[in-house]
Amino acid sequence: MSVLIRNGRVVTAADSTVADVFVDGDKVALIGARLDVEADREIDATGKYVLPGAIDPHTHLDMPFGGTVTIDDVTSGQTAAAFGGTTCHVDFCIQGRGQSFAEALAGWHGKREGKAIIDNGFHIAVTDLEEGGSLEELATLPEQGITSYKLFMAYKGVLMVDDETLFRTMEVATKTGALVMVHAENGDAIDVLVREALAAGHTEPRYHALTRPPELEGEATHRAIALAHIAGAPLYVVHVTCKDAVDPIAAARAKGWDVWGETCTQYFFTDITDLDEPDFGGAKYVFSPPVREAWHQAVLWDAVRTDALSAISTDHCAFTLSGQKTLGKDDFSKIPNGAPGLEDRLRMIHHFGVNEGRLSLNRMVELLSTNPAKLFGLYPRKGTIAPGSDADLVIFDPTRKTTISAATQHSKSDYTLYEGTEVTGDVDLTMIRGTVVVEDGELKVEPGFGQFVKRAKFGEQLL
Amino acid sequence: MSVLIRNGRVVTAADSTVADVFVDGDKVALIGARLDVEADREIDATGKYVLPGAIDPHTHLDMPFGGTVTIDDVTSGQTAAAFGGTTCHVDFCIQGRGQSFAEALAGWHGKREGKAIIDNGFHIAVTDLEEGGSLEELATLPEQGITSYKLFMAYKGVLMVDDETLFRTMEVATKTGALVMVHAENGDAIDVLVREALAAGHTEPRYHALTRPPELEGEATHRAIALAHIAGAPLYVVHVTCKDAVDPIAAARAKGWDVWGETCTQYFFTDITDLDEPDFGGAKYVFSPPVREAWHQAVLWDAVRTDALSAISTDHCAFTLSGQKTLGKDDFSKIPNGAPGLEDRLRMIHHFGVNEGRLSLNRMVELLSTNPAKLFGLYPRKGTIAPGSDADLVIFDPTRKTTISAATQHSKSDYTLYEGTEVTGDVDLTMIRGTVVVEDGELKVEPGFGQFVKRAKFGEQLL
Amino acid sequence: MSVLIRNGRVVTAADSTVADVFVDGDKVALIGARLDVEADREIDATGKYVLPGAIDPHTHLDMPFGGTVTIDDVTSGQTAAAFGGTTCHVDFCIQGRGQSFAEALAGWHGKREGKAIIDNGFHIAVTDLEEGGSLEELATLPEQGITSYKLFMAYKGVLMVDDETLFRTMEVATKTGALVMVHAENGDAIDVLVREALAAGHTEPRYHALTRPPELEGEATHRAIALAHIAGAPLYVVHVTCKDAVDPIAAARAKGWDVWGETCTQYFFTDITDLDEPDFGGAKYVFSPPVREAWHQAVLWDAVRTDALSAISTDHCAFTLSGQKTLGKDDFSKIPNGAPGLEDRLRMIHHFGVNEGRLSLNRMVELLSTNPAKLFGLYPRKGTIAPGSDADLVIFDPTRKTTISAATQHSKSDYTLYEGTEVTGDVDLTMIRGTVVVEDGELKVEPGFGQFVKRAKFGEQLL
Amino acid sequence: MSVLIRNGRVVTAADSTVADVFVDGDKVALIGARLDVEADREIDATGKYVLPGAIDPHTHLDMPFGGTVTIDDVTSGQTAAAFGGTTCHVDFCIQGRGQSFAEALAGWHGKREGKAIIDNGFHIAVTDLEEGGSLEELATLPEQGITSYKLFMAYKGVLMVDDETLFRTMEVATKTGALVMVHAENGDAIDVLVREALAAGHTEPRYHALTRPPELEGEATHRAIALAHIAGAPLYVVHVTCKDAVDPIAAARAKGWDVWGETCTQYFFTDITDLDEPDFGGAKYVFSPPVREAWHQAVLWDAVRTDALSAISTDHCAFTLSGQKTLGKDDFSKIPNGAPGLEDRLRMIHHFGVNEGRLSLNRMVELLSTNPAKLFGLYPRKGTIAPGSDADLVIFDPTRKTTISAATQHSKSDYTLYEGTEVTGDVDLTMIRGTVVVEDGELKVEPGFGQFVKRAKFGEQLL
Repeated sequence: MSVLIRNGRVVTAADSTVADVFVDGDKVALIGARLDVEADREIDATGKYVLPGAIDPHTHLDMPFGGTVTIDDVTSGQTAAAFGGTTCHVDFCIQGRGQSFAEALAGWHGKREGKAIIDNGFHIAVTDLEEGGSLEELATLPEQGITSYKLFMAYKGVLMVDDETLFRTMEVATKTGALVMVHAENGDAIDVLVREALAAGHTEPRYHALTRPPELEGEATHRAIALAHIAGAPLYVVHVTCKDAVDPIAAARAKGWDVWGETCTQYFFTDITDLDEPDFGGAKYVFSPPVREAWHQAVLWDAVRTDALSAISTDHCAFTLSGQKTLGKDDFSKIPNGAPGLEDRLRMIHHFGVNEGRLSLNRMVELLSTNPAKLFGLYPRKGTIAPGSDADLVIFDPTRKTTISAATQHSKSDYTLYEGTEVTGDVDLTMIRGTVVVEDGELKVEPGFGQFVKRAKFGEQLL
Repeated sequence: MSVLIRNGRVVTAADSTVADVFVDGDKVALIGARLDVEADREIDATGKYVLPGAIDPHTHLDMPFGGTVTIDDVTSGQTAAAFGGTTCHVDFCIQGRGQSFAEALAGWHGKREGKAIIDNGFHIAVTDLEEGGSLEELATLPEQGITSYKLFMAYKGVLMVDDETLFRTMEVATKTGALVMVHAENGDAIDVLVREALAAGHTEPRYHALTRPPELEGEATHRAIALAHIAGAPLYVVHVTCKDAVDPIAAARAKGWDVWGETCTQYFFTDITDLDEPDFGGAKYVFSPPVREAWHQAVLWDAVRTDALSAISTDHCAFTLSGQKTLGKDDFSKIPNGAPGLEDRLRMIHHFGVNEGRLSLNRMVELLSTNPAKLFGLYPRKGTIAPGSDADLVIFDPTRKTTISAATQHSKSDYTLYEGTEVTGDVDLTMIRGTVVVEDGELKVEPGFGQFVKRAKFGEQLL
Repeated sequence: MSVLIRNGRVVTAADSTVADVFVDGDKVALIGARLDVEADREIDATGKYVLPGAIDPHTHLDMPFGGTVTIDDVTSGQTAAAFGGTTCHVDFCIQGRGQSFAEALAGWHGKREGKAIIDNGFHIAVTDLEEGGSLEELATLPEQGITSYKLFMAYKGVLMVDDETLFRTMEVATKTGALVMVHAENGDAIDVLVREALAAGHTEPRYHALTRPPELEGEATHRAIALAHIAGAPLYVVHVTCKDAVDPIAAARAKGWDVWGETCTQYFFTDITDLDEPDFGGAKYVFSPPVREAWHQAVLWDAVRTDALSAISTDHCAFTLSGQKTLGKDDFSKIPNGAPGLEDRLRMIHHFGVNEGRLSLNRMVELLSTNPAKLFGLYPRKGTIAPGSDADLVIFDPTRKTTISAATQHSKSDYTLYEGTEVTGDVDLTMIRGTVVVEDGELKVEPGFGQFVKRAKFGEQLL
Repeated sequence: MSVLIRNGRVVTAADSTVADVFVDGDKVALIGARLDVEADREIDATGKYVLPGAIDPHTHLDMPFGGTVTIDDVTSGQTAAAFGGTTCHVDFCIQGRGQSFAEALAGWHGKREGKAIIDNGFHIAVTDLEEGGSLEELATLPEQGITSYKLFMAYKGVLMVDDETLFRTMEVATKTGALVMVHAENGDAIDVLVREALAAGHTEPRYHALTRPPELEGEATHRAIALAHIAGAPLYVVHVTCKDAVDPIAAARAKGWDVWGETCTQYFFTDITDLDEPDFGGAKYVFSPPVREAWHQAVLWDAVRTDALSAISTDHCAFTLSGQKTLGKDDFSKIPNGAPGLEDRLRMIHHFGVNEGRLSLNRMVELLSTNPAKLFGLYPRKGTIAPGSDADLVIFDPTRKTTISAATQHSKSDYTLYEGTEVTGDVDLTMIRGTVVVEDGELKVEPGFGQFVKRAKFGEQLL
């Protein structure tokens, strides 16, 4: 099967030129000014962008959390992704207490068997080195294509590790070629604040944010950076929300340290006042780190523009408002943390980032695709449009207007954070490895199409 | 008993004018251009400085550490202090594991009973809130004149507390009017590094510094600041050694947060290369945080000049090289941490700070006396020269040349960090509460003269 | 004549203690806890502050400007000062084009002969080194007690000098012990912007601010700092209004450069929206640099707290709204620049600075008195309360409530910038050289009482 | 004529993949994993890099300066460029005093007629708006493909403009779509310092640097940024040498201002001590801004890595040491300013930047080609490898070792700044618009081959 995409504006992290792209089998074969080649199918992309498929380095599908399970399993979550122009994601395989990493991975592979729509990989989340996995076992994972270790500095008593575990894991990463990822919030202080708030009778959603102040995110971010630098490990700070955390990342990067930061779509668009939405609607905005005062949004836009932050993910972790979020109706600390987002990232960032002049088109591609690919061992197989790369492509119409709504989304959640938002620019067609996955508003593949990707070690190319 | 000090240059944190000072009993009674008053004794201070007695907010006398006890007990340590122009200090009463604070204080009061030469107070060092003291007991201490809580973020397994204990202690301080003090180094990472170094056969003194890199001091400093700010507590970071720690303190202060930093005399004059002094001489320089690369010294001078750091202490914690430091002959981690310094602070800072143009004379007084007094609840009884204040005075000859040497010092240690250093400017006479304590190179009072001071709460005046 | 001030809280830049102050003739003779001395007059200051008289380093009295002359001459302006607790000021003697400095000084001395109420000195404003004064003549002024050179980087074609004149004057200052002062705004760009605004028909007061954006103040500030540093001259930047100018001053000071900055009372309280006051009321707020967006006010408070800025002056330059400001009714560039302020500085800064927790009482004294005295060669004769200093004292009642109003002020201007502002804390009595100048709301001396002060060279004490 | 380049590593600012590139006529026609196409010539690039031709935005060929003329005319300078992998440059057309811009351009076009080897364009250097060109004439130049205005803030009395001219030119640029370029040094102060140095008998080359301290470059850079921001014009600061200038550029960029900075190859490799090379050898290093203390080099590497600086040029301005530089044998101010460099940029930056780990290969391409192309209106015709772009390509052997020497260079200068430097990685072949220009160490085209490029306006693509 071959496809010729004619006359689109081919956009990479550096370039933007009108060209033809010829896909032969699962790879991009040719890029030319005017290709003189026959194809099984020809698509006219005049006036459209041809983008490398977006890559989401931060999602949670089919994950148990807070006494329930995320509403999106692999199929529904990845369907939403495909409709949103995301062709590959890396999900978190979370080690259970007492579990070996092998057991954890077996379980999470099970969740995706026969269900995947888009390509995918796993980060391993290290939660227990005492009775579960060992540092020795952890050291073997990069050879299996699991080349990133995630640690939680929050969720005390559940997922949180202490500084010794964090530091020793970093030392392992240095040796094995893994990238260390941290959820950076000071769990000790948050735990005290949550108990105090509840003891004072404060049960409403807004206390989710008030008990997780930005200083505690900044603190943990700064701490992780110092520890990683001493350990010699590359560090990726997930879901950065505020100036307090952007500043130490920017400072480390200015010194040339191997530190990168990610923010998520929602932190540009939601703020602490949303938690006061009536009728428990604030619960929709309960995720961690929490929504911040609105002025942090401008800091984040500056940060993604200047490469203080290098990626935008979704942290898609969907629950329903009715039935799931309501578990915390009388106690904000029991509201499952998370929100859907996989379908909306590209069009939201395109509209509010590119259309409104905050980011160049090149930089958008870099943030949503090229940088995640390079950092997580997917490049150049994914993350760009180049001969020999996987034909993971998005044909994007920059003029099409869409109104975002839960009514039309593919996540199983009953809400979206962007309900009613009108954007200009949307996905016409999503292709993965040369196969059209979404077109004309329809899913064109069956569950099981998406493949697991063994990722390259940090700093190496995936060929 | 009254004393008239004629024609000296009376220096406070703000002023510098030639005047007479009349001491009546234990207080400063009059300051005048030319006093027409009779006194039991008249001292001609022409050409001399009349300074408020120096105050040392950070010392360890008669303290058990690492299987031995500091060589200076209250009498010998305070004698050294008096010769060096220090008229008051605040020592650390360190809670033993399993001890209540009352028990700890009783023990430390016992060490000073009948032995004190200069005036003194206690900080309480919180090490155990589980089986020893409680937060409730801690809350009662400020009323007893113990108005500062010290916590260690290092010395894992010995003195270190976790973030929850640190944070909850801060919350208590907010309510009770205490100042929180922290030893800021990341004990978890240091502990791993020390074990790795020893496992690799690295036993020499230099590994003391190499296993405690400045980033880990910067990390803990930043963390303490964030936690204190959230808890609403005033914070004082002790013995700051490096840019990594100065920067977050300066940033917090610029925002108007209630954060202060202290450095110690030795960090201006020693550096990491001293640890390589032959014949185990490097052990003299083993204290924590450790000596740093020499370029940090300029950062510290800038910091004390610009009020990024607000006090200079000694962290006097004396051991002998022979017999005590040698406990770590084959294992740097067994070298008792600490060095003498109480006698040398004023003349070293005067010579290298004031004489060499790095600090004004006013700023020297502020760093060594006024700021410690104000921060630790001693002002205006101590820390300045004003009517009604304690007549704690130093007559200082700015032209007298001295060579510092262990041979002539009053500490019982067998070395000084400044051996052979020539300074211009030294103490002629030290007076406490109107009584001459040191003059003509002789101690003029008996042990027991020094008084315990119940300090005022943070932000209040001690009248 | 002698005066005994009993039991007031004597406040200096460093200290705050209750004491008696005995004034003998024109000097402070004694300070004591409880003075046993006879005096011609005794004043009970219980519950009051005894402050060193405020010093205003930046005023314009009897100055021609824009086709008119400031409404306050030496007598009316200094009367306002005395009522406001200001006991000494340094005015600008502005060299006219073609004038020698001697001619200029003769003229300005003439304005004050027989008219002065408070003590006073002159800065020399250098405007013409080609046909007027020479660098050689400039070099002789410090010996005459004129120890500060002022240069304008704005007012193109009128007062502005080019960088060569600025730099060469700095080089002279380095040699002669003068302090260089600059009005820092980029006059070239402002001149273009003003002409463009007028050409576009924009004549309203608000264009005064819009044609003098803060970036141009920041630019000139940065430039003056660089030039002074190369020339080796100490630099004092007058009337700093905005973050753009605070930042380079703070950066230079952090490096230990000899740079200081001043702001003025009005910049804490007025902002760009005031220019839109109806009925040409905005003209009241026309001074240069102009009012800024309100958020700069917090930057200024931080700056005076952290010593990024070291003095607060008034830049008193009074015109009437009716008759004088109205010269610019149809052309904002013709509105005389300036506003009254000499009477309000101390009480405004006390109320909004000290009472509202932004500054300590010590820091207020330092900003309004001690620092100006030290920087401009008046210390320790003025700027503190110490034996041998001039008895320039203010008895200040921190509890008295006052409403500021043009109806009750002593400036001849028909408005005040703070009309209707209620403050707590006001001046009870002002004393200069031992003589009561203001008491019970009445002026107690005749014009001619105020003396000219030959100031000491930069860095030297005035004895 | 068509060329097929097989199996090279095709490197752009974002990508790095092994591919075939097919050049048809003067354009890149196809890029493919394994192209099945016939070509007139096939080149095996296995193991080589295929780079977009380097672009030099800052050169001076055939320019009169200081009583002589640069030794390299268009042919010799561009030959050196071609051998060094530079396929396009933008030279400065410098308006003479009294000349209209049309006259100046006519003259400079004359210099290149029939002589050009590589493609080229002109910046217009504005020196005289009073008797020469007008702002009105300047406004017409962008339509003629002259889309950048250069102004000198130094060289007083020769090239320097005052702030009014600078600011008004910026305002014109805002309207016409030109990019403003500045040589940023404070010419007023430098002029005074030079005269003072000469008056003091200081004639040696080292006084070139001592009279142009880095603070004066920082000053002018800061000033230009402020003025450009107010004028609304995009600004490009040429030849940045030091932290003093990097800092304000970085600060402006962090705020999102339209400011870019360039440094030059030589500033990474030469320092102030080079001026002391014996036998007047220091004169080789006389260019402006001058060589700096060596520690600035690390600042520059950080700056180009973090995009504080966005381009590396050569400022090629070649003189012979013997005969030309010697004009200043007895007076450093008469040494012609400048040095050769066009041949060495790519291999020096590749070796010391990429090979030594300071820059990625992508970033090198961005700094040397893509960014200059985008900023100066050449992109995407030049500056990348994409279908439809000019086939300006370099085949670069990353393993070939070369020793740089004046003996083998193509500049007519008798020295190189990098004499004896060994580098790994050099140009095998240079192609411009599909024609091989350099291969096997030989120039393959005749003078006249190079074309003048009418550049696009700022922010627009050149198609």
